[in-house]
Amino acid sequence: MDTILESKTKIVFIGPGRPLTIIGERINPTGRKLLAAEMEAGNYDRVRSDAVSQVEAGAHMLDVNAGIPTADEPAILAEAIKIVQSVVDVPISIDSSVVAALEAGLEAAEGKPLVNSVTGEDERLESVLPLVKKYGAAVIGISNDETGISHHADVRFAVAKKIVERAMDYGIPKADVLIDPLVMPAGAVQGAGQVTMQVTRQVREELGVNTVCGASNVSFGLPGRGVLNGTFLAMMIANGLTAAITNPIESDIKQAILAADLFMGHDENCAAWIAATRGLETGHEDTNRAERRQRRSALRARRGG
Amino acid sequence: MDTILESKTKIVFIGPGRPLTIIGERINPTGRKLLAAEMEAGNYDRVRSDAVSQVEAGAHMLDVNAGIPTADEPAILAEAIKIVQSVVDVPISIDSSVVAALEAGLEAAEGKPLVNSVTGEDERLESVLPLVKKYGAAVIGISNDETGISHHADVRFAVAKKIVERAMDYGIPKADVLIDPLVMPAGAVQGAGQVTMQVTRQVREELGVNTVCGASNVSFGLPGRGVLNGTFLAMMIANGLTAAITNPIESDIKQAILAADLFMGHDENCAAWIAATRGLETGHEDTNRAERRQRRSALRARRGG
Repeated sequence: MDTILESKTKIVFIGPGRPLTIIGERINPTGRKLLAAEMEAGNYDRVRSDAVSQVEAGAHMLDVNAGIPTADEPAILAEAIKIVQSVVDVPISIDSSVVAALEAGLEAAEGKPLVNSVTGEDERLESVLPLVKKYGAAVIGISNDETGISHHADVRFAVAKKIVERAMDYGIPKADVLIDPLVMPAGAVQGAGQVTMQVTRQVREELGVNTVCGASNVSFGLPGRGVLNGTFLAMMIANGLTAAITNPIESDIKQAILAADLFMGHDENCAAWIAATRGLETGHEDTNRAERRQRRSALRARRGG
Repeated sequence: MDTILESKTKIVFIGPGRPLTIIGERINPTGRKLLAAEMEAGNYDRVRSDAVSQVEAGAHMLDVNAGIPTADEPAILAEAIKIVQSVVDVPISIDSSVVAALEAGLEAAEGKPLVNSVTGEDERLESVLPLVKKYGAAVIGISNDETGISHHADVRFAVAKKIVERAMDYGIPKADVLIDPLVMPAGAVQGAGQVTMQVTRQVREELGVNTVCGASNVSFGLPGRGVLNGTFLAMMIANGLTAAITNPIESDIKQAILAADLFMGHDENCAAWIAATRGLETGHEDTNRAERRQRRSALRARRGG
């Protein structure tokens, strides 16, 4: 079962029989003071360049967040989404915990966007799901509720099930709900990775819905974050993960995703892997070839050829 | 359930609640012409240095193979094992498809070694299992039989089950059988990785026995083999893999294994990960500190301090 998202002209399919869908995470002022100050001042240059560079690095969609305390989040989020859509043509993930900002984002987004996110709390479900239905969007359901974030896979699964059922009550098809199994920092919570993998597998096998996760949190506070995030994503893909909000510009992450896609049988003839590694492995040779070509043209020019 | 292996004085536990057991793969003349020629000529210098460097890089055990066509494999294998045991103190994996070589290896190995391997073919089971029992060793069962290597997880699982049952008939406890789910080159066999992961999970869940794999084969013929092998091992660990015959000297592989151990909850306080990355991330600082210390002692020496 595929989740279908759309930009102005492009369609993205998220599903278990496909390569991981990469949702670029960079357009997010949380922890990026300079970006926050710029966005608040109406300067979107960095939003533009982050949009372009992430899509160039392989992002299929872009997450857009404008969570700046004290700022007018709905207005800034809508503006940021418009700016992103003016420079790249990929579906948008509208990222906010403020319902008014989600609605402003839904007004601004072209095509069929993803709402990031709703939790399993009744009050959130009741305010976010009608919006998702009204705008014909898809939604990410995070597997925590009023009782907090459980360390038990079964409890998280039960919350995921509740979100899917509640969405269907509102007329949102199952295919339009992605479950986020919740990634905790492995440095702080022993075994955090394993619980998340278990929930991901259970959601896939028992609910049959697609999953998405933000992987970066898993390595919070630890050294070697690129390798940790990449390895974790590969392990999640092995458990059925279908999409990730991550940074495709980080080569350790991008390589791990491509390698994992290959081993899942989602890279026909290993074409994507070979294309991605060609630059790395034959870089030296290519330079030489380019140099030779340049020298030959220079010679020809001198000879008047 | 742990598989217990022993060298002269050390014990290695292989099991699902522990970090991956790394079995160094390097002492193997297959595809290493120079090593083959040296071993055949009775020169074991490279065997010695490969043994030491792999254990230094984190190998918990060493695989020893002497498969040189035209050479006296039993004699060379026994000699190589003795040499390895003279420089490092880790349990040995005796690697041969020749029964006489396995027996010579079992005679030479101290402690409780691992026999690598027996297939599900009746003739192999009948010749190898009595040896494993006689010497009180453990054994790797490879999930193929007379009909070849199946592309179907169910068929491979059935062969694995047959091997475990047959071993028990010979009085070999279940804990002393490790199943190798068979890793095919992903570049040649589409979806090869996924079948192997499925068999690994099924063996863990339904047979409750430990698993081991040689990961290097998975990247055969492809570029970027280190990242591919490391990513594949992480995905296998996510499916319950307990040991791997691999190259711990390759940093992409070692890092992926450590990261995967961490996410499985097998690296308390992330101590192994932090120790392994400290060298990489603060290497520059450490050098400076070492240099400063050296300079200070030199100064003191000159002053007669």
